[in-house]
Amino acid sequence: MVLEKLKNVPDPTYVHQTPLTAFITSLFAAAGMPENEARLSAEVLVDADMNGIDTHGVCYNLDLHYLTGLLNGYINPTPNVQVTYQTPGTAVIDADRGMAMIASVRAMELAIEKAKTTGMASVAVKNSSHYGAAGYYARLALEHDMIGYTMSSGGGRVIIPMNGRYPWMGTNPMAFAAPAGEEPPFVIDMASSMTSYGKVSIAQAFGVDIPEGWAQDANGEPVTDISKRSEAIGQPPLGGDYDHGAHKGTGIGIMADVLGGVLPGERLSGMMLDNPKGGRFCHYFQATRIDGFRPADEFKSDMDDMLRAFRAQEPAPNAAGEVLYPGYPDSEYVTKRIEQGVPLPRHTVNYFKKMADTLNVEFTI
Amino acid sequence: MVLEKLKNVPDPTYVHQTPLTAFITSLFAAAGMPENEARLSAEVLVDADMNGIDTHGVCYNLDLHYLTGLLNGYINPTPNVQVTYQTPGTAVIDADRGMAMIASVRAMELAIEKAKTTGMASVAVKNSSHYGAAGYYARLALEHDMIGYTMSSGGGRVIIPMNGRYPWMGTNPMAFAAPAGEEPPFVIDMASSMTSYGKVSIAQAFGVDIPEGWAQDANGEPVTDISKRSEAIGQPPLGGDYDHGAHKGTGIGIMADVLGGVLPGERLSGMMLDNPKGGRFCHYFQATRIDGFRPADEFKSDMDDMLRAFRAQEPAPNAAGEVLYPGYPDSEYVTKRIEQGVPLPRHTVNYFKKMADTLNVEFTI
Repeated sequence: MVLEKLKNVPDPTYVHQTPLTAFITSLFAAAGMPENEARLSAEVLVDADMNGIDTHGVCYNLDLHYLTGLLNGYINPTPNVQVTYQTPGTAVIDADRGMAMIASVRAMELAIEKAKTTGMASVAVKNSSHYGAAGYYARLALEHDMIGYTMSSGGGRVIIPMNGRYPWMGTNPMAFAAPAGEEPPFVIDMASSMTSYGKVSIAQAFGVDIPEGWAQDANGEPVTDISKRSEAIGQPPLGGDYDHGAHKGTGIGIMADVLGGVLPGERLSGMMLDNPKGGRFCHYFQATRIDGFRPADEFKSDMDDMLRAFRAQEPAPNAAGEVLYPGYPDSEYVTKRIEQGVPLPRHTVNYFKKMADTLNVEFTI
Repeated sequence: MVLEKLKNVPDPTYVHQTPLTAFITSLFAAAGMPENEARLSAEVLVDADMNGIDTHGVCYNLDLHYLTGLLNGYINPTPNVQVTYQTPGTAVIDADRGMAMIASVRAMELAIEKAKTTGMASVAVKNSSHYGAAGYYARLALEHDMIGYTMSSGGGRVIIPMNGRYPWMGTNPMAFAAPAGEEPPFVIDMASSMTSYGKVSIAQAFGVDIPEGWAQDANGEPVTDISKRSEAIGQPPLGGDYDHGAHKGTGIGIMADVLGGVLPGERLSGMMLDNPKGGRFCHYFQATRIDGFRPADEFKSDMDDMLRAFRAQEPAPNAAGEVLYPGYPDSEYVTKRIEQGVPLPRHTVNYFKKMADTLNVEFTI
């Protein structure tokens, strides 16, 4: 149970949502972003931490993507985000190489707005950067009694498709969110790989060996000794091998390439095999009105019935935990972390101190 | 490589598409269906055989679902399929317990028709039966320069969710299809389990032992000896266990429950824990205009670029086959089976003879 081990942050520093968001906002603003866009970006990241999605919060990707990208020019701190094409139920947005959260929240809000008229709508975003946890955007639909859906594609090459030798695509995630009445909403938020890139990074940070299927070397052999992570050239897709469904994980990943990339006209990493660095990130957002099918109250009441029956299932004798639906543990994390704060590992606190110093920002957490 | 073994039908009888469709049509008509609806149902099934999806063609499910269902009353041979609710971009169809292909083709065609106006549209179908291979319906969008998507849910309980002891849901599949220019289209057609129920049935028919993850007994232990299939009470979700992504397969399965079931108001198997037989099947269909984002010709040309680059990838040294995208092998099967016919195993030919005799239909294949 490696995933369970990765949930226990060693020697944590607990920081509450409000001061954590304020500090991250000040880092992004110091790197050139307007205050309001810096705050929105920080809110999306801290929301992941609050929901227990430690891989996509503030602990790993500021260094790997956001702050480093703002400082080295991959991310444009003052993008001119524009709708470049639209019909009543569809649109394309150019993120102008900005922080992905700016274009992504705008895109999901536009899909929701359009769906109010057409019943369902979708918006594709090109020329973007890493958008954080996919679930944030899908959940934006919930308060409108809509079903939210999103996929993201692009960036560096990480996933080695079934039978392939080298990585081809990103960990291309998807998220789906549907509201319930009294139960926490049903939310899937998943990479199309067996595990996200971030989980391997946490395992490395915590010194935890990883299961077969999380990383693969240039000979197609699994890497499980985390001290040898540098020998890994990529990750297998969900399923791992053919008999266990690698074609399914591969297909879900390509689906994100199609919706997030080819649809809005992004040049995907896999289409530029001569460009070892890979291309931009790109995304897809979709909203569907529940009352396009039946009254939302009836739907949500039946969701409660289904989700409660799901949770009432008897666990297997050898089960590692309760029978919970995706989205339920997230809501438990929110409750816990509102009280305790977000547990930051030592390396994150050290990185924050260093960057506060570099950017001349007060270290307030 | 168990999946490879299951592709080789022992002692096959080859039958071409036209006579096979005609014979299956005559069986369905003899069981009470109107001729045109019997033909459409047969066409959907034989299309799966032509595409190499042997699990969802004529060989296993006539006995497990269609012909048996028509004869025992689960399937209504003369349904009154009706649109019970609609808006410009959404609709609900009641299949009236009929053969699922009738309501499903009508639903996908309605989604396509609506998407012409709204850009994208979706239709949910309740009160249905087993709809065959999901890919058929997604592919209906292609000739309209649209992206097709479908999920199906319900029926008997087969999949044991992560940490659960007993099966909760069906193998709840999804399919996604996007057109290319000269390349075969990109088509995913996948169960949310590690493998479909039908693959286990083929393994049993051919006497091939199965990999861990395809079947599980009442103690939560894997069943791999195919002679002990009767000890299996269900199948794990895609991913198998938590560290390898079982929460992802579980989540995709519930997503089908939400879209196909809760959305149109179907009472799902999992909501009726006191009903050991499970409920009806139900489905979801979605169509999206490509030119809602950019000209379809540009999209299809870029799809060609991407799919060709995908196929040009170097295979791993230990790869079991070429690097192919989902949908490509299907098109190779179509070419091969137009020439050779569909390979029917001995047990299928025997079953057809028996049913022809029972229903007083001429055995013409």
